[in-house]
Amino acid sequence: MTDTTTETDTLVVAGRTYRSRLLVGTGKYRDLEQTRLAIEASGAEIVTIAVRRTNMGQTPGEPNILDVLPPERYTILPNTAGCYDVDTTVRTCRLARELLDGHNLVKLEVLGDERTLFPDVVATIQAAEILVADGFDVMVYTNDDPIVAKRLEEIGCIAVMPLAAPIGSGLGIRNPLNIRTIVENAQVPILVDAGVGTASDAAVAMELGCDGILMNTAIAAARDPILMAGAMRKAIEAGREAYRAGRMPAKRFASASSPIEGLFF
Amino acid sequence: MTDTTTETDTLVVAGRTYRSRLLVGTGKYRDLEQTRLAIEASGAEIVTIAVRRTNMGQTPGEPNILDVLPPERYTILPNTAGCYDVDTTVRTCRLARELLDGHNLVKLEVLGDERTLFPDVVATIQAAEILVADGFDVMVYTNDDPIVAKRLEEIGCIAVMPLAAPIGSGLGIRNPLNIRTIVENAQVPILVDAGVGTASDAAVAMELGCDGILMNTAIAAARDPILMAGAMRKAIEAGREAYRAGRMPAKRFASASSPIEGLFF
Amino acid sequence: MTDTTTETDTLVVAGRTYRSRLLVGTGKYRDLEQTRLAIEASGAEIVTIAVRRTNMGQTPGEPNILDVLPPERYTILPNTAGCYDVDTTVRTCRLARELLDGHNLVKLEVLGDERTLFPDVVATIQAAEILVADGFDVMVYTNDDPIVAKRLEEIGCIAVMPLAAPIGSGLGIRNPLNIRTIVENAQVPILVDAGVGTASDAAVAMELGCDGILMNTAIAAARDPILMAGAMRKAIEAGREAYRAGRMPAKRFASASSPIEGLFF
Amino acid sequence: MTDTTTETDTLVVAGRTYRSRLLVGTGKYRDLEQTRLAIEASGAEIVTIAVRRTNMGQTPGEPNILDVLPPERYTILPNTAGCYDVDTTVRTCRLARELLDGHNLVKLEVLGDERTLFPDVVATIQAAEILVADGFDVMVYTNDDPIVAKRLEEIGCIAVMPLAAPIGSGLGIRNPLNIRTIVENAQVPILVDAGVGTASDAAVAMELGCDGILMNTAIAAARDPILMAGAMRKAIEAGREAYRAGRMPAKRFASASSPIEGLFF
Repeated sequence: MTDTTTETDTLVVAGRTYRSRLLVGTGKYRDLEQTRLAIEASGAEIVTIAVRRTNMGQTPGEPNILDVLPPERYTILPNTAGCYDVDTTVRTCRLARELLDGHNLVKLEVLGDERTLFPDVVATIQAAEILVADGFDVMVYTNDDPIVAKRLEEIGCIAVMPLAAPIGSGLGIRNPLNIRTIVENAQVPILVDAGVGTASDAAVAMELGCDGILMNTAIAAARDPILMAGAMRKAIEAGREAYRAGRMPAKRFASASSPIEGLFF
Repeated sequence: MTDTTTETDTLVVAGRTYRSRLLVGTGKYRDLEQTRLAIEASGAEIVTIAVRRTNMGQTPGEPNILDVLPPERYTILPNTAGCYDVDTTVRTCRLARELLDGHNLVKLEVLGDERTLFPDVVATIQAAEILVADGFDVMVYTNDDPIVAKRLEEIGCIAVMPLAAPIGSGLGIRNPLNIRTIVENAQVPILVDAGVGTASDAAVAMELGCDGILMNTAIAAARDPILMAGAMRKAIEAGREAYRAGRMPAKRFASASSPIEGLFF
Repeated sequence: MTDTTTETDTLVVAGRTYRSRLLVGTGKYRDLEQTRLAIEASGAEIVTIAVRRTNMGQTPGEPNILDVLPPERYTILPNTAGCYDVDTTVRTCRLARELLDGHNLVKLEVLGDERTLFPDVVATIQAAEILVADGFDVMVYTNDDPIVAKRLEEIGCIAVMPLAAPIGSGLGIRNPLNIRTIVENAQVPILVDAGVGTASDAAVAMELGCDGILMNTAIAAARDPILMAGAMRKAIEAGREAYRAGRMPAKRFASASSPIEGLFF
Repeated sequence: MTDTTTETDTLVVAGRTYRSRLLVGTGKYRDLEQTRLAIEASGAEIVTIAVRRTNMGQTPGEPNILDVLPPERYTILPNTAGCYDVDTTVRTCRLARELLDGHNLVKLEVLGDERTLFPDVVATIQAAEILVADGFDVMVYTNDDPIVAKRLEEIGCIAVMPLAAPIGSGLGIRNPLNIRTIVENAQVPILVDAGVGTASDAAVAMELGCDGILMNTAIAAARDPILMAGAMRKAIEAGREAYRAGRMPAKRFASASSPIEGLFF
């Protein structure tokens, strides 16, 4: 029997417990104030920062994102957006660890090309092996291939983050069956990373059994980012609760005695 | 410009203002206590009752649904579920008005057959004309045909309620473009009635611009109806806020300068 | 056991037997020569002509479509495109019958508005009753509502022609379950009329069990209408044969012992 | 400008020219005679054989598939179905080359697990490098990741064969945008391998611009495999011709001046 108390339905990442299953990025906002307000409205407790694009201390004297997102309040998740090879990626993670005083948590992404922003899964696997051996807690962006996802888990990544659709596309869950298969196979948290466009997309991902969602553009590029941040917060809770509540079976008609099958549309 | 204050984003039906956009039915629950708890968790302020299947006073001495759903707290929306012709439908509405001391609000449905539970739109139009002339405030269940929906509005129905999918199917929004077209054409509230199966379906309907959703089986036939009721409440709020927030454009890749087009999948 | 001989798998309309299940229109071509070549490549044996837009003898001295489409070779199917009310529609059918020397076959369409080109099903039903009583063989354009489709059959229409999507949209089969339900309920031929955009759309309609498809824009508005006409011919044969051959069950994985179910995407 | 002459629209693989774009397997048929008849009806010129499951000479004295599929008539494409590691895969290709007297063409597949039959793309890349260096003409089964597909092309594979859906699932093209992206990026033929369930699926793959399709279960597991084989032949020709003919733009309504956009369903 599912526990109906939402209070105890928490996400655990790297030994820490979170009540929010929404992770957010910091790019594409109008200014730091809008960033701050949107993140607050989202209820996110983990915020990812693109180390190569954002000042988190590398450039003293410039505005520092950590002033807006104090590490006491938010778990900072440095990411390697913009890295296209293993060496740059690994170096970027080490830089982040220095800037954050030994903080081991990173989101690894090694991109395959500039057009699609799909991951290079071969390079991703190599970088994951190096980073895990070097003591990092690695959350890893990948495609929606169940075999690659399992391999990343076996290497020791603490969370696997398949794409729902290309980064920044807003196309929603392109291949729900793949995401579902990844979830079924996993012993670590599965978080959808990239592709969510609106609230229902987030609900779908959670209904598939994902443990959380990371998003940025869907909030930041909405006409009203702060209102959308709240919508996403509710959508993820709704999708999670619907997953836990166990949906009614789909069937062609109420009168039918069995679920829909045979026909396939 | 959209008003970002959710407090003022209300649903107005027959001159009354509601904060909840979720309308629920009372069928298929284990018992009246589960009915009561689920409806409470849903946050619904309008509850629909099948006059021909539920005791709302017709059978003195039996348990009365109005004891669980006091009309001081809930707007009672009698419906004509189980009616297959104009006469029975009109008589059922008049009976409900008597039982509820002159309460004029009804949900009209005239079904076409027992297998699909699709409406008979010709009979529905005839019954709507009679009921409107007789002073009823008619909310009307219909198919997803934009021409029929407009006709029902022109007759004087105060809300038009197209199906998303067959009653009790849980198949979700089968034809979003039709629902969208109905919404674009309407001057009265459009509420999806029938077919929602899980939280994301509800969010999709609201993102299409619907004013609300009526559901029953999706909550009552979930493994945990009370948890699902709360999920639906959040999903509808999430979908509504996402609609008002203005979603990001969908495009194939972040790098693309224009929305997705040309390709059609 | 399905008869595997395609030669005997024929379409019967108004007592005549056809080997082609593709019906085509004559609008939107560059000129009469392209019309002729495309129709020839399509293999169609029934060609529909918009009486109010095409000269089939009303205007002596002008080019006459029947010179290109001789009635000895093609079954001419006059249609009432552009009619928005019962009277005009009925008059248009009678005019066609005169021009074609007593030919009783018509395609009835009564449109609901100019934007969507959806049918007005109430007016369609009324016109069908008049035309059937007047001795016409009525093929009828309608929405994809199973109750309306059955009603039109009961009135005596010889074929029911639900839309797949709005006329001229090319969006394909928007609601396959509705089309499937119409097919299951029918004793007369069901032909998809409107909405097909490309070859796979036509195959899908046939795989749902439809008896044929009527199309115009999908051929005429292709970059190469003549090549597309041949593609449509093959797609309809392919879809029909796949329907008769009995497709493999869909399942998540080859290893699964049962069809896909429970999960619903 | 597309050449509209189908006669010259050929598939070139490893320097040979084919008129058929349908490649078929030999598994799951009732007997060798049904295999022969279905392949004949399909019009296929390239037939793939699972070396580890089929006798193509390894077991003298047993029925030999090459008696049914004479190499003078068919291009034999040995495949490594059932291989889960690089060594076994490479050895299987070398065995096939010996059995076929130096024939260099192989279809490489290295599977990731027995449940999903997804490829192990890391092992696939390694095996491809070895086989290309050893002089094989490698056609390669892969997932639908555009970065992996391009990498396999760069290694020197002569054709890349992404899955549409899991092997033997019949689920059709799960992620058309990925397949489309792979096609856009490619300089070698892209053939969908696995997942097609019925004729319309095959047409969709071709309309996306694929150069061909390899299938087995969709034909062999149909109720009438021989009729389905013919359906697939026509569906692939239809889809190819529709692709070359340039489909009409999809739009919400005929009256709309621009293609569908903004709305995303």
